[in-house]
Amino acid sequence: MAKTALVVSAHSADFVWRAGGAIALHAADGVAVTVVCLSYGERGESAKLWRQQGMTLEKVKAERQKEAEAAAKALGVADIEFWDLGDYPIELGQASLFRLAGLYRKVRPAFVLTHSREDPYNRDHPLVSQFAQEARIVAQAHGHNPGETVLGAPPVFLFEPHQPEQCRWMPNTLLDITPVWDKKRAAIECMAGQEHLWEYYTRVAQQRGVQAARNSDKKIAYGEAYEAVFPHVVETLVPSEGRK
Amino acid sequence: MAKTALVVSAHSADFVWRAGGAIALHAADGVAVTVVCLSYGERGESAKLWRQQGMTLEKVKAERQKEAEAAAKALGVADIEFWDLGDYPIELGQASLFRLAGLYRKVRPAFVLTHSREDPYNRDHPLVSQFAQEARIVAQAHGHNPGETVLGAPPVFLFEPHQPEQCRWMPNTLLDITPVWDKKRAAIECMAGQEHLWEYYTRVAQQRGVQAARNSDKKIAYGEAYEAVFPHVVETLVPSEGRK
Amino acid sequence: MAKTALVVSAHSADFVWRAGGAIALHAADGVAVTVVCLSYGERGESAKLWRQQGMTLEKVKAERQKEAEAAAKALGVADIEFWDLGDYPIELGQASLFRLAGLYRKVRPAFVLTHSREDPYNRDHPLVSQFAQEARIVAQAHGHNPGETVLGAPPVFLFEPHQPEQCRWMPNTLLDITPVWDKKRAAIECMAGQEHLWEYYTRVAQQRGVQAARNSDKKIAYGEAYEAVFPHVVETLVPSEGRK
Amino acid sequence: MAKTALVVSAHSADFVWRAGGAIALHAADGVAVTVVCLSYGERGESAKLWRQQGMTLEKVKAERQKEAEAAAKALGVADIEFWDLGDYPIELGQASLFRLAGLYRKVRPAFVLTHSREDPYNRDHPLVSQFAQEARIVAQAHGHNPGETVLGAPPVFLFEPHQPEQCRWMPNTLLDITPVWDKKRAAIECMAGQEHLWEYYTRVAQQRGVQAARNSDKKIAYGEAYEAVFPHVVETLVPSEGRK
Amino acid sequence: MAKTALVVSAHSADFVWRAGGAIALHAADGVAVTVVCLSYGERGESAKLWRQQGMTLEKVKAERQKEAEAAAKALGVADIEFWDLGDYPIELGQASLFRLAGLYRKVRPAFVLTHSREDPYNRDHPLVSQFAQEARIVAQAHGHNPGETVLGAPPVFLFEPHQPEQCRWMPNTLLDITPVWDKKRAAIECMAGQEHLWEYYTRVAQQRGVQAARNSDKKIAYGEAYEAVFPHVVETLVPSEGRK
Amino acid sequence: MAKTALVVSAHSADFVWRAGGAIALHAADGVAVTVVCLSYGERGESAKLWRQQGMTLEKVKAERQKEAEAAAKALGVADIEFWDLGDYPIELGQASLFRLAGLYRKVRPAFVLTHSREDPYNRDHPLVSQFAQEARIVAQAHGHNPGETVLGAPPVFLFEPHQPEQCRWMPNTLLDITPVWDKKRAAIECMAGQEHLWEYYTRVAQQRGVQAARNSDKKIAYGEAYEAVFPHVVETLVPSEGRK
Repeated sequence: MAKTALVVSAHSADFVWRAGGAIALHAADGVAVTVVCLSYGERGESAKLWRQQGMTLEKVKAERQKEAEAAAKALGVADIEFWDLGDYPIELGQASLFRLAGLYRKVRPAFVLTHSREDPYNRDHPLVSQFAQEARIVAQAHGHNPGETVLGAPPVFLFEPHQPEQCRWMPNTLLDITPVWDKKRAAIECMAGQEHLWEYYTRVAQQRGVQAARNSDKKIAYGEAYEAVFPHVVETLVPSEGRK
Repeated sequence: MAKTALVVSAHSADFVWRAGGAIALHAADGVAVTVVCLSYGERGESAKLWRQQGMTLEKVKAERQKEAEAAAKALGVADIEFWDLGDYPIELGQASLFRLAGLYRKVRPAFVLTHSREDPYNRDHPLVSQFAQEARIVAQAHGHNPGETVLGAPPVFLFEPHQPEQCRWMPNTLLDITPVWDKKRAAIECMAGQEHLWEYYTRVAQQRGVQAARNSDKKIAYGEAYEAVFPHVVETLVPSEGRK
Repeated sequence: MAKTALVVSAHSADFVWRAGGAIALHAADGVAVTVVCLSYGERGESAKLWRQQGMTLEKVKAERQKEAEAAAKALGVADIEFWDLGDYPIELGQASLFRLAGLYRKVRPAFVLTHSREDPYNRDHPLVSQFAQEARIVAQAHGHNPGETVLGAPPVFLFEPHQPEQCRWMPNTLLDITPVWDKKRAAIECMAGQEHLWEYYTRVAQQRGVQAARNSDKKIAYGEAYEAVFPHVVETLVPSEGRK
Repeated sequence: MAKTALVVSAHSADFVWRAGGAIALHAADGVAVTVVCLSYGERGESAKLWRQQGMTLEKVKAERQKEAEAAAKALGVADIEFWDLGDYPIELGQASLFRLAGLYRKVRPAFVLTHSREDPYNRDHPLVSQFAQEARIVAQAHGHNPGETVLGAPPVFLFEPHQPEQCRWMPNTLLDITPVWDKKRAAIECMAGQEHLWEYYTRVAQQRGVQAARNSDKKIAYGEAYEAVFPHVVETLVPSEGRK
Repeated sequence: MAKTALVVSAHSADFVWRAGGAIALHAADGVAVTVVCLSYGERGESAKLWRQQGMTLEKVKAERQKEAEAAAKALGVADIEFWDLGDYPIELGQASLFRLAGLYRKVRPAFVLTHSREDPYNRDHPLVSQFAQEARIVAQAHGHNPGETVLGAPPVFLFEPHQPEQCRWMPNTLLDITPVWDKKRAAIECMAGQEHLWEYYTRVAQQRGVQAARNSDKKIAYGEAYEAVFPHVVETLVPSEGRK
Repeated sequence: MAKTALVVSAHSADFVWRAGGAIALHAADGVAVTVVCLSYGERGESAKLWRQQGMTLEKVKAERQKEAEAAAKALGVADIEFWDLGDYPIELGQASLFRLAGLYRKVRPAFVLTHSREDPYNRDHPLVSQFAQEARIVAQAHGHNPGETVLGAPPVFLFEPHQPEQCRWMPNTLLDITPVWDKKRAAIECMAGQEHLWEYYTRVAQQRGVQAARNSDKKIAYGEAYEAVFPHVVETLVPSEGRK
């Protein structure tokens, strides 16, 4: 049976900048990746759109959804959902919590990607990180919708925030995304409203690539960094051989 | 070509309590494991021997070496070396540093195991941790014995100290050692001089086993915990399938 | 006048695994211990019960309450309350906050036990830790129900979570529970629904016992570890003599 | 155009003890300082008032407002607002969040002062710290009340809590308040209801003054310490010359 | 048999500022306190003396010893030793390590006081902290001077550095020194060469006194703060009654 | 009188990658910058040179010195010294410590730049950081070469290591180096032996530039990040106006 993965993104562009490589890489390997955009980032992350004449909240959302869908397609996302929960601040109540727990049980992801625990520049990101982790725990509870199969213990990886050190985020996992870099760049270029970030996140991928190479003796040009929330459970300490 | 591993142990019993499972597991998989015992722990970790009448430093060392060799055999160690550098405090000068750098280059380990960075109960352990990491860096230097092939970047894992929280040691890697638990227990029982620790470290393996199972949905009865010094460099975020 | 203590437990079994020794020990010394179970853990910590045919939320709660009452009796708890606030997630509003503040003022505990500040495996635990500490602060406020005697500053100790290092919990207080170990084990065995944890927490007590002995030169077989939230205020730095 | 600053104070006395020097200093330099007292601290920080016969919540608030206004005058505050949101616990909903975001946009502060991130003695303080930072982020969002000029990125400084180490608060900025110490002391003496704190916070100012001198070779008698949330962005690393 | 304590002081005045209260308090209770001044602080902590005409290293040392002896007498120190190991930097070799280990075994202290682990303002202090802890470990080793009785596990408390937060030092133990404050102040006034510190450390004692009172409901006017290196091993969680 | 600054560089290229912008910026402002290269990095940081036929240690050093002198010239360094203390490991004894203390007193820097406190990839860097800080403390000691004017308390800034998060280094100061970026790039291009790092450190400057702009509302294209060791002592909390 095909593997799956779940990406919980606060705003509709976060999954592109922060996890586009992981998504494309696993999609290319046959993993069915579901992305949930809890909000469009319509208030707080759409400055360029708001500078246009006659802009409204609904137009911003529509534009953002279009961009995110295009990016998802470029990355090979299997399913993308938009929950429209608002932003700055995002509204995360119990109904959404149970909805996300339900999605965990439906998708049964092999791994989960979401935001960092702290971010002094962005309040929605740590709230979503907490929320995504809590929904995973609810999905593990036998008394939540008894009769449904409970979730196991998929690892959770926190993706790179904009200013990593200020978020007390520690990259302890470096993913080689060289083979899919073109797809990530293509997805990034779908984000017309945030063009000022294109080069920034391209350089992030280059720096993490150099670091991944330095930590492994492998040839790696582009990387994505993650902080694993839980210990890695392994059957060997010998590193993988790397890509051929 | 066969893989190799290097274990840098402050005293001649540390590799048994702290890394016996990893050693036996990889040895069983064909990895040639070299263990360096920098000291016998003759002054500080041989209380029971010193309670015997007529004990001398040389007799303690001889006894400790015998025990360690028996344990190494039980674990399937390919090579064990005793450097007799003294303990409490251990004496780690530049000659030993270069000797260890040389061993790194000779062994070319796929991974390295050594002590935690801090330990308020034991001064030799953090000194050895620092020393083992420094020798690895020297072995990477092109100007150290030019002409020799330099070392790559093998990952370093820090093994579990006696009182983990007090050593600010964070287990971020859990190794399933269930298949070789019998060998680890046999090696533990070679340590006649420290019988009071047999059950303690058996329970450590059981607790880490339960935790590894909880973090992975795999069936794991015995575990060893490690703190990875460097980020894991990976080609996938999908966890391994576990043992069949 | 008799001393008192207050234990704030997220779910109806937590006080047993995590504080059973402290409860039995102080009860045996004449301290009247009040335990508040804010929830039954009916959804998230009752897997075994849910595997039974025809199980309902009410049956789970009834069963959990019966087990907790039996355990409380085995430990010598003076009073146990079940607040039935739900779990996964627990619902902690202002009414409950003021109710707990009222209990603080009624009990006037010499010390307080509750959960760790963080726990990536369990969202209710850190929420309850925060809640128990906040209620203590409300109980100290002169303007809260003016006329009532305000609470002083009882120390708060955070009990050991399931995977201590992952919760960034630091055991800075080790309690010798050897004299009451039999009672704690008896209480543990009342938890029929979580038999898989009996041996795990027995080993925890053994490990903490060994560590307590190592940190004190006292003969200690079983221990419980706590993280004190506030500084210890003392009149001497000479350690106690230990049990006779 | 005159510079401005914004102080977000949980209770109506906090801005005096914790930021009175900064306020007086900048006011004297022509900075228009706005202070928002989110609550009066009527329940939790007015012990002395509650010991008076016939005291009511309204009387406490009135008294606290009078004291705060007198202190504000002594410090040269340009504007002080009382939002009366309650205390122990403070109630901080979305309406207040947007109100504070609006104030940010109106004031357009050159810098912001508020509470520390943690405080085990006081739950309102960290809640207000989070709230003040979140409102700043909302005020930066282009989609929040589109058409209004968005806020830039004023630095945020966290003021000193009562027991600094216990709050994991790190003073990385020391402000010389020697020239305005008399004003701060005068403001402190307006706080009739908390006379027990006068000398305590005078000593805090003296200790921070000594430390500021030690870190700078300048003559400084009184200081205030702050933790900057964000990196200092500077055009030179040469320290300022100090006061003439 | 009388209890004993050991204070390991980097320079000849540190034990006064940082532990004078603890020394006087325990001395008054019949504890025989040994103070080791590893250096006089003749180069780095004698600015006032060096401003005198014709000063030499030997004169500074003689003056510092005289002051320290007077202070020790005021505090009721049982024994004070001056090891003259130099300062800025202090020279701590193996001979001194074994000498201190010998002193541990001779004194057999119920507790140990020494410096903080870090201090960016003073390099000798953390070196001495490390050294004092290492000597304690050597003294515990059965193979160190076999035949001698080995040391047990006395708790170690780290005293307050000059700028506590900058040293990442966490006060987790507050000692009530009110009954002996007069003696500590008298000892402080023996330090003629560092008069600028008298009021500073008087205020430190007052602040720690207020904090100790706040954390305990006891009446405490003067305090000393310590960071315990090891967990407290206790038989009860009920706080002491305080002084009568 | 002209201001001065001191840069303590472990190897002869570190000052270029890590502090070239700060050097050029201050030099352009008339600050006389002294750079000390404690070692050439001849063994550990000259891989490309060692790949050449017939290379010797002396040739590597000569080449490295030539490159460093060219870079220093490009940056406007007032004085550069090569102490040739060896690398991997660097040898830092008391004679060098006193030599550096002497240089501190001679230069009397307004600020000091050196390496991060930790670096698991490079042992010399943290050793030099410790050493540079210790020499500063010795230079402050009145008893060190009495008669010389003692050093004040210049701030120390730690420059950015190669993999910042892994070094637990926290950038709390961002310097705008836009006006001198061309000079830094020119200096970088003098480092012929490490061409693989040119683009890496160019991207570092771009990323820090974006972050500096985000934290300040200023137009900044290139930045350097530093961790201040000591608190900033300031007379105002109003940020500077930025470059015109």
